[in-house]
Amino acid sequence: MKFNVFTDMEYQIQSASTLLLSINALRNQHQTVLSEEFTISPYIKTEELPAVNGENRLIRFEVAEATTLKISYKATVDNCYKLVEYTDKPDIPVANLDPLIIPYLNPSRYCQSDKLFRLANNQFGHITNSFEKVLALTTWINQNVEYLSGFSNASTSAFDTVTEQAGVCRDFAHLGITLCRALNIPARYFTGYSYMLKPADFHACFEAYLGGEWILFDATGLAPLNGMVKIATGRDAADAAIANLFGDVLFTSMIVGCNLADGEIFIPFNYSVDSTAGICYL
Amino acid sequence: MKFNVFTDMEYQIQSASTLLLSINALRNQHQTVLSEEFTISPYIKTEELPAVNGENRLIRFEVAEATTLKISYKATVDNCYKLVEYTDKPDIPVANLDPLIIPYLNPSRYCQSDKLFRLANNQFGHITNSFEKVLALTTWINQNVEYLSGFSNASTSAFDTVTEQAGVCRDFAHLGITLCRALNIPARYFTGYSYMLKPADFHACFEAYLGGEWILFDATGLAPLNGMVKIATGRDAADAAIANLFGDVLFTSMIVGCNLADGEIFIPFNYSVDSTAGICYL
Amino acid sequence: MKFNVFTDMEYQIQSASTLLLSINALRNQHQTVLSEEFTISPYIKTEELPAVNGENRLIRFEVAEATTLKISYKATVDNCYKLVEYTDKPDIPVANLDPLIIPYLNPSRYCQSDKLFRLANNQFGHITNSFEKVLALTTWINQNVEYLSGFSNASTSAFDTVTEQAGVCRDFAHLGITLCRALNIPARYFTGYSYMLKPADFHACFEAYLGGEWILFDATGLAPLNGMVKIATGRDAADAAIANLFGDVLFTSMIVGCNLADGEIFIPFNYSVDSTAGICYL
Amino acid sequence: MKFNVFTDMEYQIQSASTLLLSINALRNQHQTVLSEEFTISPYIKTEELPAVNGENRLIRFEVAEATTLKISYKATVDNCYKLVEYTDKPDIPVANLDPLIIPYLNPSRYCQSDKLFRLANNQFGHITNSFEKVLALTTWINQNVEYLSGFSNASTSAFDTVTEQAGVCRDFAHLGITLCRALNIPARYFTGYSYMLKPADFHACFEAYLGGEWILFDATGLAPLNGMVKIATGRDAADAAIANLFGDVLFTSMIVGCNLADGEIFIPFNYSVDSTAGICYL
Repeated sequence: MKFNVFTDMEYQIQSASTLLLSINALRNQHQTVLSEEFTISPYIKTEELPAVNGENRLIRFEVAEATTLKISYKATVDNCYKLVEYTDKPDIPVANLDPLIIPYLNPSRYCQSDKLFRLANNQFGHITNSFEKVLALTTWINQNVEYLSGFSNASTSAFDTVTEQAGVCRDFAHLGITLCRALNIPARYFTGYSYMLKPADFHACFEAYLGGEWILFDATGLAPLNGMVKIATGRDAADAAIANLFGDVLFTSMIVGCNLADGEIFIPFNYSVDSTAGICYL
Repeated sequence: MKFNVFTDMEYQIQSASTLLLSINALRNQHQTVLSEEFTISPYIKTEELPAVNGENRLIRFEVAEATTLKISYKATVDNCYKLVEYTDKPDIPVANLDPLIIPYLNPSRYCQSDKLFRLANNQFGHITNSFEKVLALTTWINQNVEYLSGFSNASTSAFDTVTEQAGVCRDFAHLGITLCRALNIPARYFTGYSYMLKPADFHACFEAYLGGEWILFDATGLAPLNGMVKIATGRDAADAAIANLFGDVLFTSMIVGCNLADGEIFIPFNYSVDSTAGICYL
Repeated sequence: MKFNVFTDMEYQIQSASTLLLSINALRNQHQTVLSEEFTISPYIKTEELPAVNGENRLIRFEVAEATTLKISYKATVDNCYKLVEYTDKPDIPVANLDPLIIPYLNPSRYCQSDKLFRLANNQFGHITNSFEKVLALTTWINQNVEYLSGFSNASTSAFDTVTEQAGVCRDFAHLGITLCRALNIPARYFTGYSYMLKPADFHACFEAYLGGEWILFDATGLAPLNGMVKIATGRDAADAAIANLFGDVLFTSMIVGCNLADGEIFIPFNYSVDSTAGICYL
Repeated sequence: MKFNVFTDMEYQIQSASTLLLSINALRNQHQTVLSEEFTISPYIKTEELPAVNGENRLIRFEVAEATTLKISYKATVDNCYKLVEYTDKPDIPVANLDPLIIPYLNPSRYCQSDKLFRLANNQFGHITNSFEKVLALTTWINQNVEYLSGFSNASTSAFDTVTEQAGVCRDFAHLGITLCRALNIPARYFTGYSYMLKPADFHACFEAYLGGEWILFDATGLAPLNGMVKIATGRDAADAAIANLFGDVLFTSMIVGCNLADGEIFIPFNYSVDSTAGICYL
């Protein structure tokens, strides 16, 4: 499926600064970037770094002096996904997990799974099928956490959200990841462009590692699962932040969009309570 | 009902210190202290202060120098309670609450009800009868929080316990109070001697203000509700701590007991899921 | 000194609600309310409750249905203060404290003094004179915490502020109180109208109980200490909130002011690093 | 320098479990494991996984049924270090950092550097030389945080320790890492066997990335910096825990030791306040 994605961001640079941006669509065997354009005005030379798992694309550049910086990214991306049936699929026990997956079982900055062990097991421990478990916890978050712009901030973590029960997509994702890990299911943070997300913005959801595949879940329920263009994955937002700013920088505005390329036909897909198949992007 | 209660405590005083103890049985129109004896060895003059609501009995004394301090309290107490039927009892709205009750709606040190507003309302907001609401939240705590000695400490608050789901009677009480306040039901901390509590110790539970009465609830379910000898009430453990120590003092040992006086017959009382009447001590 | 104070507030009431407001100037032997006017539009009958220490004036009223509520308060207040010299003034040990003062040593919702014991003593424990101690901690807060509107919210407590080091007057006051209590100095929250505060708003600072008097401190340094018209005191903002709202109520706007009455001459007073006298309002 | 290191651990396995242990001395070009022996009784097949940075050695094995498990590890290790002079050494700006180093600037589970930004900069921002900065913050932790066994637990993070000011080596390390990152200095957690550590135990300290080298710091001051045998590094204890237990496992006992090999002569090395050179193991 082909999507046209874009973002226009503006920063007020107050003094010499370095910026790390994670806004470029990821490239891998299932997601092809057909074309892309990244521009900074005034012009600054940028460099692309491989990040986290070697797949994320981190754009780094220095701004030498105070200025108003306009960043513009647009791309046409062709991605594909598959559906994985989980009715009888066996779990991979920790004893057989690939060492590269094990870190996604550990607690992280915004995902204190060590503190939610009892809660997760009291609430979801009785469900035997792991796909159903993650589906159930996603539904639980969706039903109990209120989507509320401005409620949370950059320091908010799953330990807050599980009790305060309000936040934005980032908080929904962190709570999902945390509950998975507390249930010994590896999970990671996912950022992307998202078709039909309202209001348009970057989106964050999460992937659970089930039967050897990274399966996508979105506790916000705000966008179809099959309209995502992946930007990055990581342990949580600390690994996959849209922007990391070093210096005296003020974020002033942003618009983000994701449209269907000409000629594409899109049928929105989301899980229902009795889904047995998960959607896998990688 | 007459109970013989006692405690023997030992402190290592390292240097000049002041101690505030809250271990004496409260005296009011429903609880008569028939006899009591409070001794400190080596002998120190003590003074009794009225505390919090003017009813708590705070014992204050200074220890001039390093010593091993043995404190012994024993009393025979005659208390009574009543059962209050809540089937059709109307709530008292905030608009009509006695001003002395209003502070028990506010968050306090260990009871951050402001943070649990959504959780409490998502979980229990659909229950219309307030007694049933508190009964339901007490049951929920009992089912979800594990009684685990040594898990929590003096800094642990309801915001921790609601997620970490383990603790001791004090933590169960704080969480009960917090959920009540988040539902706009005044609630307070209750400490006492408790008959049939195993292992024997001071006990903490909570009272909810329902239809004009303070009704006792105990989310631990570890002791009968009708075997309590009240020591103190307060907003939370900050108001009604067994001991407040000012100086370099080491708590070394304690035994606590509560026995039935001769000739008394005791029929344990606890709520069941379909109870409609609450137990009221004051 | 005579001040004209006022506030105009607007609330969107979405459904039947109860409001508790604490905006009326306190009346006591050192602060006389010469005239005052409290109006609600549309008209609603209000009642005045004595709160916390019996001195705070809590205005309670019910709003029966959805409406835009305008509340207006204005008053002319004559207050006075004294300066108390602390050069050789002995402290009152806990052993001699009035029982009514003891609760102000305890931790409270926004003032977790139990957690700051080591920090407070490491930082300020070497200062022997208690007035100098509180002056030093006030200066430390002023130098380390950045005044930043919008950084904190209604859940922010001293435990956050001591590390995150940004906030508004309420956060500065909570941290001051917390450090005092961690040093065994009773302290309480103070709200008032404040002359020369920029931008004009309600103000929050704190009082420390030193040598038998409640002495005012303001870690923000944003207003003269002698231009305060006291509204309320309490353990922290949970006790002395400007507004407590029960129901579906949206706060939409507020203006607050404090002006010198005609003919008054005002000489701003603040502590300097070598002050030896404290300002006492009560 | 050659060291003989060992540990004997005992676990009560209650039911089928998987264990991940990180107790083997790391092998790299500066640390040679001359001999080692890892035994489990009763015998279980183990597998060694490369972890985190590909260098950590994670031992994984499954225990099929309830048993008392004895694990014994001993090794003779030859390690070396160098001293790096920092008097005029330029910092590596974020703009030039190796992408593999960048994650060590991010906050992590136990190191919420995002929350300590102002504190770190208020306290240490005035120091221009980065080595001196880290030396100063290490000294500050050493002077302000009390080493207190049993004060903290597995959930304790730097955000707690910076205020509560007590903990064990793990907490000292987390706080050091957090302050570094808040100052834009990459930092990571380090576990090892430690010669002359009293009482003998596994040790945790931290490395700061200064001028292109990982330099060791130990805020506890409990052991010489040149007597460490490295086991693992990671973002924090979540990455480099001694043991990760999946299943119903009870840790029952452990002894740990680190002795000088025959014929070696050891001269303890630690930084002083005016040190200008750092110790580098890798």
